[in-house]
Amino acid sequence: MNRIYNFAAGPATMPEAVLERAKNEMLCHGTDGMSVMEMSHRSKMYLAIYDKAVALLKELMEIPDNYKILFLQGGASTQFASIPLNLMTVNNKADYIDSGNFAAKAISEAKRYGKVNVVGSTKDIAYARIPVIDESKFDPEADYLHFTTNNTIFGTHFNQVPKTKAPLVTDMSSSILSRRYNVNDYALIYAGAQKNLGPAGLTVVIIRDDMLERTPMEFTPTMLKYKTMADNDSMYNTPPTYGIYIAMLVFEWIKELGGVDAIEKLNNEKAALLYNYLDSQSYYTAPVEKDSRSMMNVTFVTGDQDLDKKFVSEAAKAGIVNIAGHRIVGGMRASIYNAMPKAGVEALVSFMDDFAKKNPK
Amino acid sequence: MNRIYNFAAGPATMPEAVLERAKNEMLCHGTDGMSVMEMSHRSKMYLAIYDKAVALLKELMEIPDNYKILFLQGGASTQFASIPLNLMTVNNKADYIDSGNFAAKAISEAKRYGKVNVVGSTKDIAYARIPVIDESKFDPEADYLHFTTNNTIFGTHFNQVPKTKAPLVTDMSSSILSRRYNVNDYALIYAGAQKNLGPAGLTVVIIRDDMLERTPMEFTPTMLKYKTMADNDSMYNTPPTYGIYIAMLVFEWIKELGGVDAIEKLNNEKAALLYNYLDSQSYYTAPVEKDSRSMMNVTFVTGDQDLDKKFVSEAAKAGIVNIAGHRIVGGMRASIYNAMPKAGVEALVSFMDDFAKKNPK
Repeated sequence: MNRIYNFAAGPATMPEAVLERAKNEMLCHGTDGMSVMEMSHRSKMYLAIYDKAVALLKELMEIPDNYKILFLQGGASTQFASIPLNLMTVNNKADYIDSGNFAAKAISEAKRYGKVNVVGSTKDIAYARIPVIDESKFDPEADYLHFTTNNTIFGTHFNQVPKTKAPLVTDMSSSILSRRYNVNDYALIYAGAQKNLGPAGLTVVIIRDDMLERTPMEFTPTMLKYKTMADNDSMYNTPPTYGIYIAMLVFEWIKELGGVDAIEKLNNEKAALLYNYLDSQSYYTAPVEKDSRSMMNVTFVTGDQDLDKKFVSEAAKAGIVNIAGHRIVGGMRASIYNAMPKAGVEALVSFMDDFAKKNPK
Repeated sequence: MNRIYNFAAGPATMPEAVLERAKNEMLCHGTDGMSVMEMSHRSKMYLAIYDKAVALLKELMEIPDNYKILFLQGGASTQFASIPLNLMTVNNKADYIDSGNFAAKAISEAKRYGKVNVVGSTKDIAYARIPVIDESKFDPEADYLHFTTNNTIFGTHFNQVPKTKAPLVTDMSSSILSRRYNVNDYALIYAGAQKNLGPAGLTVVIIRDDMLERTPMEFTPTMLKYKTMADNDSMYNTPPTYGIYIAMLVFEWIKELGGVDAIEKLNNEKAALLYNYLDSQSYYTAPVEKDSRSMMNVTFVTGDQDLDKKFVSEAAKAGIVNIAGHRIVGGMRASIYNAMPKAGVEALVSFMDDFAKKNPK
């Protein structure tokens, strides 16, 4: 076994301790006589795992009692439809912030179901920062305001929560559990699992009770109705049982490390290693403005596309993989989620410095 | 490790060889330096797994070139909506056969989107057989006919394919790959993975090209559009990568056993063990009519609810678990999917005989 440093944006590297545990329990979970993958979702042995996943997430994120935690299928892209279908139903209008590619996807899906008011966009500057919001642009009748807490592709993060009277709905896929968020600020938080929570194919939705009282649009598929899922504890149909189990192991791992505050401290240190290096030299440029920087996805370029390609390919040979930027932006991106060890970031910085010396511009 | 015989209806027992392989590859897949769970879905290493899954399923089921194989999220329940949303769009009418609980769920979801013509139902006899279809009931303008090949809860199976001019759409969740089916008979086959294919959270859709040309209803969520998924090789968003990998291992396992014909022979032997025993005695009754019997789910009762409960609880003590019938029907149900070894069925029959002797009525 020779594990390498995987800087992929998602699916992404997992905590080795979690994989070890999954490995050891693959054929037989405890004294249950079977793999978690084989458990009936309605069996006592599985419900113990499920309940633990819910309880741990509630504890780690300090989720108040007036929120429901749902474990759903379909990815954040399905939520782009579910959100307007379920929530854009009071005035059929919503405010959206366009801070990146996935934000834009959420907007284009929402436009199919109602009136979308884009209250801010940084598309014209290649999403190099979080939009500054002119509060006068808010629609006072908006059913909610949607934004993307962390923009995976561009490496930006909302370091301040937008201030609006509308209920806040946020895509937290690439930063959930990476730092402290105040759940009370939000009416709905959703996150695809494949960055900070577990395997692809699972989406966590944290929804405030009053949002469950809105009547979904008439043609909403039953499986996309939050109320149906909440009333059935995410078991209206068979949930992605194994993914939920892995997420539970990830939650346990975070708790053992000391919880979200401890993880945030580690993440700060990892991000500082990279950003301090980037700020200390001129070979690489970090395109994101400082006050919008993400702790999870760090983007940089050499300014020369051929050199960027060489960087990506030589890094791979040095055991630093999936460091290429997203295909729509190019350059490099280091995704340094919770599970990326500090040693991985150190190895990357050291490789960057070495590469700069060996490849003068 | 002490694995027990798990007769759950789904999620269900998995081939031990598949779990062994998943275990061995959990931290590091081959020389890839990472777990399959950690691979970017667009990386070469993952695409090799994905392509293998598609190729193996195509080979095993002899899927013709004019069909697309999709690996989707959301379960069969999501398909209950996707099917009318995508296909009930020519005349906005479809024929449905009501052969069980999931068939009825598919019907109620479809009714939300168009005119459903129920061409046969055995609800009045507790779904004890597959409905006999009066062909004069078919709507000549039906956009498709939907039926459930194998009815997991009641233990029935369509041993003949309905004869209609409408394109056939079938839920094959609990019998796909258990026996030979002629894919050419169908316009669309779908199957939740958690019975015969792999972990919950993955649904296989096999769709004929002409079905992809139908225009979905205007309000169809993008993630539920078959054409979008087909055009993007199921990677419009991040697919359930780990589930697809496990399914690929299951396909390899079936191929190594000799393919679908070999599995069918084994399944026939296993089912015969149980049904021959049931037919040879009078302590247990098998409620399903003989020509509708499923090879995958075998239902039986003692005729005394207390004895049924005792059976389930004593069986569990003997290492035979999840043998209780579905909560809406009671009694017992043995799900004997591909992965259930013959020794498990032998153990069950032996336990049944023993129980009958020790608990005279």
